[in-house]
Amino acid sequence: MVFVSNKSNQIVYGNLLYGQSGGPTSVINSSAYGLFTEAFKSNEIQEVYAMHFGLEGLLKEDLIKINKDDNNLSKLLNTPGAVFGSNRFKINYDKDIESLEKIYLVFKKYNIRYFFYNGGNDSMDTIYQISKFLKSKEYECYCIGIPKTIDNDLIETDHTPGYASSAKFIANTITEIYYDDHSYLKGRVNIVEIMGRNTGWLTASSALASINGAKPDLIYVPETSFDVDSFLAKVQKIYEEKHHCLVCVSEGIHDKDNRPLLEQNKIYDAFNHLQLGGVSRYLEELVHNRFGYSTRSFELSLLQRANSMAPSEVDIDEAIGVGMRALQVALMHITDKMVTIKRISNNPYKIDFDLVDLNLVKNQIKYLPNEYIDSENDTINELFFNYALPLISGEEKNHFKNGLLDVYKLEK
Amino acid sequence: MVFVSNKSNQIVYGNLLYGQSGGPTSVINSSAYGLFTEAFKSNEIQEVYAMHFGLEGLLKEDLIKINKDDNNLSKLLNTPGAVFGSNRFKINYDKDIESLEKIYLVFKKYNIRYFFYNGGNDSMDTIYQISKFLKSKEYECYCIGIPKTIDNDLIETDHTPGYASSAKFIANTITEIYYDDHSYLKGRVNIVEIMGRNTGWLTASSALASINGAKPDLIYVPETSFDVDSFLAKVQKIYEEKHHCLVCVSEGIHDKDNRPLLEQNKIYDAFNHLQLGGVSRYLEELVHNRFGYSTRSFELSLLQRANSMAPSEVDIDEAIGVGMRALQVALMHITDKMVTIKRISNNPYKIDFDLVDLNLVKNQIKYLPNEYIDSENDTINELFFNYALPLISGEEKNHFKNGLLDVYKLEK
Repeated sequence: MVFVSNKSNQIVYGNLLYGQSGGPTSVINSSAYGLFTEAFKSNEIQEVYAMHFGLEGLLKEDLIKINKDDNNLSKLLNTPGAVFGSNRFKINYDKDIESLEKIYLVFKKYNIRYFFYNGGNDSMDTIYQISKFLKSKEYECYCIGIPKTIDNDLIETDHTPGYASSAKFIANTITEIYYDDHSYLKGRVNIVEIMGRNTGWLTASSALASINGAKPDLIYVPETSFDVDSFLAKVQKIYEEKHHCLVCVSEGIHDKDNRPLLEQNKIYDAFNHLQLGGVSRYLEELVHNRFGYSTRSFELSLLQRANSMAPSEVDIDEAIGVGMRALQVALMHITDKMVTIKRISNNPYKIDFDLVDLNLVKNQIKYLPNEYIDSENDTINELFFNYALPLISGEEKNHFKNGLLDVYKLEK
Repeated sequence: MVFVSNKSNQIVYGNLLYGQSGGPTSVINSSAYGLFTEAFKSNEIQEVYAMHFGLEGLLKEDLIKINKDDNNLSKLLNTPGAVFGSNRFKINYDKDIESLEKIYLVFKKYNIRYFFYNGGNDSMDTIYQISKFLKSKEYECYCIGIPKTIDNDLIETDHTPGYASSAKFIANTITEIYYDDHSYLKGRVNIVEIMGRNTGWLTASSALASINGAKPDLIYVPETSFDVDSFLAKVQKIYEEKHHCLVCVSEGIHDKDNRPLLEQNKIYDAFNHLQLGGVSRYLEELVHNRFGYSTRSFELSLLQRANSMAPSEVDIDEAIGVGMRALQVALMHITDKMVTIKRISNNPYKIDFDLVDLNLVKNQIKYLPNEYIDSENDTINELFFNYALPLISGEEKNHFKNGLLDVYKLEK
């Protein structure tokens, strides 16, 4: 990686601002930890601030000062959620002048010269817009994106921090469900709904349970179309044969005309309201009513993105790493980039960090490659294992205290 | 504990039979491990068998021979489910003569002289009935119950193996849900349904999350009655004030006339079928439709009883311990007892094992004591923490391999 300084070669003294954005991951707080600890080592950075609830907080000048002497900072590695507060605020250079002016004034007031935003593709666009506005004001500030999303759908990076810990939770939860169901001679049709509106990266990780002898019978991802009749026929065949059936579905499955499953089949409850809940609940009822089988549905819901009980050590290390690297490149006066992860080798697993233009990565989606999908058998093939297995490796030590997660409690 | 031999003082050579019964726990296979390893040390026991699917397997002579040289046996400690197969088969001395005769013949054929059944209160009754029948045939066999239930509702024991790992999963999952929801300035009404038809031991463990700053706002257990109107009023007050609300409910909550919540409020879906799912789903829809709040329901379902990712080390050690102790007392020619856990001290936490008559423990239920329940505020008070905290302590090492649970795969 060749670093080219964008502006002055002189040292720029100033303060740092960090924000969390979008849905939390198990390791978003680990990236904050990496960034902060690296910042505390530098001479250029004087004060470190985190936005309280991202841009929503920034606009209200609600900032949290991070204390170098805070001995609890390492607990960020054990803490679920986005502990400094996240937001889903989007910003547009052409339309949101008022907000951008306000942001600029806060940056000036707090002498923010290093700005880091931790999020997915929407968030990368947000940094891009803010940076563009700051440039238009000739305000010197280095703006770097720190990647984060359980969905693993950012382009130009081998994977995203957060994905692996969710994938690990899913693979092992599927193992648990399989073994629990096989405690009985006759089990149920188990339907597990996994996050992923547009991509099947997370749902694919359910296939890793095969290595434990806990292979899901059917896996449906949004990269292919879902046919209800074919699904029902397959479930019937499997359950009649084995008296067990384990199905994993992405929340975003859709038919061949790209219509999401639940839009086609609006379910109204006793109150005549649209029934809440996702596709697993719908499919569970469909199977139960069609065949009378014992069924059970699972929505892994936010448990899969808040997994702090058994996260991947590789994931935590890489999350810390992208935070540290973000700081390093900003100090080199690089701006408008997102840190990426490049896989150097698989065995042993080795990575390096790299950079990509925000402009390139924003608002784009990386889909599960076709070669991983066995659409004839509605499953994921073993090529995917080579990709995913190295990412979920390793366990944290000492992240519990008296049996409870030893979390970072925000004093605010 | 004074051991009094029930029958001969002569050494009884013979084989061992072990069975799993009822719902699985995270540590039922750890008790099998304790029993087997202790049996392999003894001279009296020649062969070790496990029933494949409990009594259901036994009646078909479907037994699994456990091999002393099986290097994988220690993986039983990492394995969810009831890996030898469980069952819900009940037996009655007066009515099931045919089954009892068959059981007796299998015992004789395989020279079973040491019989261990790993289960809850129903299972203790099963051992009692089988032992009574074997005695009527003057067949010498030592029958010992090994306790197991996540529900923690067996009398005469401080707690039951399996409870602590579920409680640990619940306390930490509640922490994760709380922190995830607090990632946003405005969160949801989160309703978490926890197992426990008759008792609130598991639901109470959600209160432990308070220690992590993640206190549930409302906790409802079956030991008190549940009033829908009061619930709705409290949720409204809490959510309007904090824009967050976290409710934990036992699946077995009921009204003041002891009618389960879902029986009073039968919900039919679009197919005109009784809607599947539990109380959390029902309450979620109730809150959403009444107030329009964003809601989210969680059924922790079998994830809470299959927790092998972050079980309690104390629980695993005790589960091994009750298995070992069961073997030891059977070798002393004690019969018709269940092994119990007696708490000697809390700080440091120390226990001893003891015994109770099967006859006394069968078909009885231990409820959550009144002193733990704050029914005015619909929560659990801190007295409970002293009871529960020591049980959830400690983490397993090396129970993962390449990021996946390193499970025992039954070769059958």
